[in-house]
Amino acid sequence: MASSRLKFKNIDNTGFGNNSNVEGGRLVNRDGSTNLRKRGMPIWERLSVYHTLLRMKGSHFFFTIILSYTVINITFAGIYFAIGVENLSGIDTSKSMVDEILAAFFFSSQTLTTVGYGHVAPTGLLTNIVASTESLLGILSFAVVTGLIYGRFSRPRAFLLFSDNILIAPYKDGKALMLRVATYKNNHLTDVEAQLTLALHINENGKLVTRFYPLPLEFSKINSMALSWTMVHHITEESPLYQYSKEALYDAKMELMVYMKAFDDHFSNTVQQRTSYTFEDLIYGARFLPMFERSADGSYTLLELDKINLHEPVTFKEEIMV
Amino acid sequence: MASSRLKFKNIDNTGFGNNSNVEGGRLVNRDGSTNLRKRGMPIWERLSVYHTLLRMKGSHFFFTIILSYTVINITFAGIYFAIGVENLSGIDTSKSMVDEILAAFFFSSQTLTTVGYGHVAPTGLLTNIVASTESLLGILSFAVVTGLIYGRFSRPRAFLLFSDNILIAPYKDGKALMLRVATYKNNHLTDVEAQLTLALHINENGKLVTRFYPLPLEFSKINSMALSWTMVHHITEESPLYQYSKEALYDAKMELMVYMKAFDDHFSNTVQQRTSYTFEDLIYGARFLPMFERSADGSYTLLELDKINLHEPVTFKEEIMV
Amino acid sequence: MASSRLKFKNIDNTGFGNNSNVEGGRLVNRDGSTNLRKRGMPIWERLSVYHTLLRMKGSHFFFTIILSYTVINITFAGIYFAIGVENLSGIDTSKSMVDEILAAFFFSSQTLTTVGYGHVAPTGLLTNIVASTESLLGILSFAVVTGLIYGRFSRPRAFLLFSDNILIAPYKDGKALMLRVATYKNNHLTDVEAQLTLALHINENGKLVTRFYPLPLEFSKINSMALSWTMVHHITEESPLYQYSKEALYDAKMELMVYMKAFDDHFSNTVQQRTSYTFEDLIYGARFLPMFERSADGSYTLLELDKINLHEPVTFKEEIMV
Amino acid sequence: MASSRLKFKNIDNTGFGNNSNVEGGRLVNRDGSTNLRKRGMPIWERLSVYHTLLRMKGSHFFFTIILSYTVINITFAGIYFAIGVENLSGIDTSKSMVDEILAAFFFSSQTLTTVGYGHVAPTGLLTNIVASTESLLGILSFAVVTGLIYGRFSRPRAFLLFSDNILIAPYKDGKALMLRVATYKNNHLTDVEAQLTLALHINENGKLVTRFYPLPLEFSKINSMALSWTMVHHITEESPLYQYSKEALYDAKMELMVYMKAFDDHFSNTVQQRTSYTFEDLIYGARFLPMFERSADGSYTLLELDKINLHEPVTFKEEIMV
Repeated sequence: MASSRLKFKNIDNTGFGNNSNVEGGRLVNRDGSTNLRKRGMPIWERLSVYHTLLRMKGSHFFFTIILSYTVINITFAGIYFAIGVENLSGIDTSKSMVDEILAAFFFSSQTLTTVGYGHVAPTGLLTNIVASTESLLGILSFAVVTGLIYGRFSRPRAFLLFSDNILIAPYKDGKALMLRVATYKNNHLTDVEAQLTLALHINENGKLVTRFYPLPLEFSKINSMALSWTMVHHITEESPLYQYSKEALYDAKMELMVYMKAFDDHFSNTVQQRTSYTFEDLIYGARFLPMFERSADGSYTLLELDKINLHEPVTFKEEIMV
Repeated sequence: MASSRLKFKNIDNTGFGNNSNVEGGRLVNRDGSTNLRKRGMPIWERLSVYHTLLRMKGSHFFFTIILSYTVINITFAGIYFAIGVENLSGIDTSKSMVDEILAAFFFSSQTLTTVGYGHVAPTGLLTNIVASTESLLGILSFAVVTGLIYGRFSRPRAFLLFSDNILIAPYKDGKALMLRVATYKNNHLTDVEAQLTLALHINENGKLVTRFYPLPLEFSKINSMALSWTMVHHITEESPLYQYSKEALYDAKMELMVYMKAFDDHFSNTVQQRTSYTFEDLIYGARFLPMFERSADGSYTLLELDKINLHEPVTFKEEIMV
Repeated sequence: MASSRLKFKNIDNTGFGNNSNVEGGRLVNRDGSTNLRKRGMPIWERLSVYHTLLRMKGSHFFFTIILSYTVINITFAGIYFAIGVENLSGIDTSKSMVDEILAAFFFSSQTLTTVGYGHVAPTGLLTNIVASTESLLGILSFAVVTGLIYGRFSRPRAFLLFSDNILIAPYKDGKALMLRVATYKNNHLTDVEAQLTLALHINENGKLVTRFYPLPLEFSKINSMALSWTMVHHITEESPLYQYSKEALYDAKMELMVYMKAFDDHFSNTVQQRTSYTFEDLIYGARFLPMFERSADGSYTLLELDKINLHEPVTFKEEIMV
Repeated sequence: MASSRLKFKNIDNTGFGNNSNVEGGRLVNRDGSTNLRKRGMPIWERLSVYHTLLRMKGSHFFFTIILSYTVINITFAGIYFAIGVENLSGIDTSKSMVDEILAAFFFSSQTLTTVGYGHVAPTGLLTNIVASTESLLGILSFAVVTGLIYGRFSRPRAFLLFSDNILIAPYKDGKALMLRVATYKNNHLTDVEAQLTLALHINENGKLVTRFYPLPLEFSKINSMALSWTMVHHITEESPLYQYSKEALYDAKMELMVYMKAFDDHFSNTVQQRTSYTFEDLIYGARFLPMFERSADGSYTLLELDKINLHEPVTFKEEIMV
């Protein structure tokens, strides 16, 4: 079988190495990121702070801002207190230390946000210098936040929803591997391209190597992601999957990497999305059920996103698995 | 006729399905959006708030901002009132409740916009915390608004004006389908590409299917959208329109999808625009009249946008409609 | 001559029409804009305000902002005065009307910029509403200004400097048309493409038509705009210029449209620039002198931008002009 | 040898000239910038202030802002003082001149940042006009700063780390030139292309000319920069390097220009990076050691960035250097 396997042309320019022994786990995670960690450089050089803040969950981002705001105000409250709150006109200095620190905290927040009511105001050189610095810091910080918020909004994304599983379904006179994808937002993609790469970890001359095979699709490009798209790889004799049994794929730790590229109307930009399936996601003998239908009044088409995984079992006419 | 129809190669990778029974109404709306609705996911996951705010009409956007501003101020006025307006120094607490709420409202607006006059100012822990939070919220909100306003301005768009109708006009020794397009803004498009796809709902072996045919143009690409562009599809024997009568097109619920792509000078970005014509938009035996002319002083060319639909009836030399 | 002229293939997809009688003056202006005006739609629909503000000169832009700021403040000063300045606490109402209006003006500017000192502050319902509205307007306006300023900065541009003239110089065994281009900013262009299109207004069968001919270059693409680029069109027998005398080109109102496209390092974006030469810009028998040299210490190359037009007269070995 | 050298096709469209006598030093610097200076135009026309501020080091950028803030405040403090600080209500005019100037300075900073406490406030026409102008200037400046900060964050960059050296290593039955590259940030590149151009300064017919040769790679494009990429140029008989000894390359002041282009996931944009190696960076008889390995728990792959330069000496089976 090994010899016949070799007739399917594998590719070497995927960017992944072909020595299975130095790679750990799956190559690409479900969310499309490479299953890789980097080290050997300090984290502040390795990490793009901007992109980390851009990609974190909305709630985490919001929390980060609140926290930063509080920490900055506490810091400056400490500085004002250290200099002496008697340099903040309008603060009642006959009160307790806690009250003084709180007053300094609120004065700090009024300065940082540039709201500057003025019922508390800086006097004395040092306090004035600190307040002047803080208001500059405030404006710079909020310039950063404006950039981050805009960056988060305007980051081009494909918003693609993939089916949880890849199915092996009857197709024409044989079988085909199928997966389904749809856009779940109110965006519109055109010139949509898909590229499927199969990774198999196989034994070649006693060495465990990773081999990559492109899986051709019935259509590798569609003009527009109007509805859903069921990608179909016909398992013909030319397909590297042709002679693999379910068990053989499991042994080879099969992984299917999916790469999609399209032009997005919203952003007027190219968007990309990747995902990856492993053997666990593969279902033999199943086909997708329709996920769109005519609307009740017949005036439009209705795409039902919750049906993206809907499939039914099917039997193959003749079992041609080896 | 059905058999001869089949000799024109149809395409399957438009992104639309070919089962006419599960689609409702036209495929693409006049404004280029797909005639599709999605469901099966919560609206907040399905909707891109940013893009909705980016694409809504200017007046609606402005109203949304005013409304949000008012609602936020009313909310905070309520909070300040609940805590007690006696914690807002400078407010005359001997006045009526309405006056107190109004004073709280205006204090809120002064805090939210960070104008912070200070004739009214927060005292007391709780009021200070709320005011500090509100000023942060104000700055974040206006960061969002800045991003939205910039996003609205800078969203790459083609600003193409299409003729209301598609005409069947005499052309060379036969006929041609024509439509006209021009840019109506002071932008400049280069490398302008157009792609016409004809959709016909036809009966094939007793099943109603949707067939898509690309309609080749005399020029599918022009170097620059300098003036107006009249797109011409010559109806030769190779054209899927060759043997269709007006009635046959009506029966087949003909739809002509137009897709344009260009590089825009203003945005230095690729821009796209789509539109779609149905049978109702088709005029047999008409041709477009010129829409540009030499200026009075001869020093420049004048493009008259209101003439984009101007056409005159023409008769065909020989009626070759079936 | 007319017949031989026809053997050079002209192109029709430039986006310009081929009827010389409906076009006025040159096709493309020196600055690359099309020599075209549009009418037939209201100016506010035809004009992209954003792009107009983006493309106007820096000084005009600055003046527009100052003017808008003044006009808005005068308007609001009028409103505050109409309501009554007694509703602005802190204003000395015993003064003259001019002083009152000035006080209202400065209060307005303090509100619009959200500086809000508070020595003058709104009292009374109406004045409070106006002030609250003005501070919102202020924040929105400055959101717009922030967007415009960022847009002006970040607008991708090629910053190409073209030679004032096109030269006909000796080249190999014959002649060549040459023009020179360089980047004058500290930006870097890669994958630089150039496209030359010759427009001739000629008499064909008694009708004045515009014919467009692409002029092939020795290199139509260079990897990087490292130094200056002298574009060379060899005038071989295949060139439409081969049999045109200086006078014939003048009669045909020759125009040479230059279109350049590159990828810019600064913006990480495709940039474009166009220009156009007419017969007046053509110099027969001249060649460009070098515009770069080794630096004094030999450690770098020096590009002298003021030498871009530097050329010297040359004589052709044999005069082959007709 | 000179004749055999000529059989390798050199290219002329690199954008660099081929006269070695007018170029100084290396062509491209290590950081990818062209080793070129421009003059002949005033610096303010030649310099893109925006891009200079975008590309300067973070610390320099921060310092520039602090400095500008201080200079603007000193300038306005001078103006307020010249007009007379008695026009600033709240300032104790019985104090020393230094105190007055300091008070004017802090009032200026409160106006510029729009914090506007109000314990010091402008009175009198002139002071009010200046304060009103300053607050406008403040808002405009911070619009600029917001744009710059966003521009700095969002500038698409490839973040590629190149090996310090290029190695000549045994490869197949001969030798190959190798260099290594990896991304050091948490970004992801797809469709990664590399282009190697060799520059040699050689004597041709007694004239010192610069010749450029593209060096073909085993893979010139990889699908994704998943791990590290070792670029391999096989030195076959077709390679311009085939008959060059170490000394000959030194004499020819060999320079290897590397140009990389990819699509970046973070920015959804094309990114580029260039670098250049000279003869000094070349190591004969060495090969790279692996820089990635399976993680301890086997669940992911670990890329060790500090190992990018790690290589070991190797000997060639047969010395085929001339």
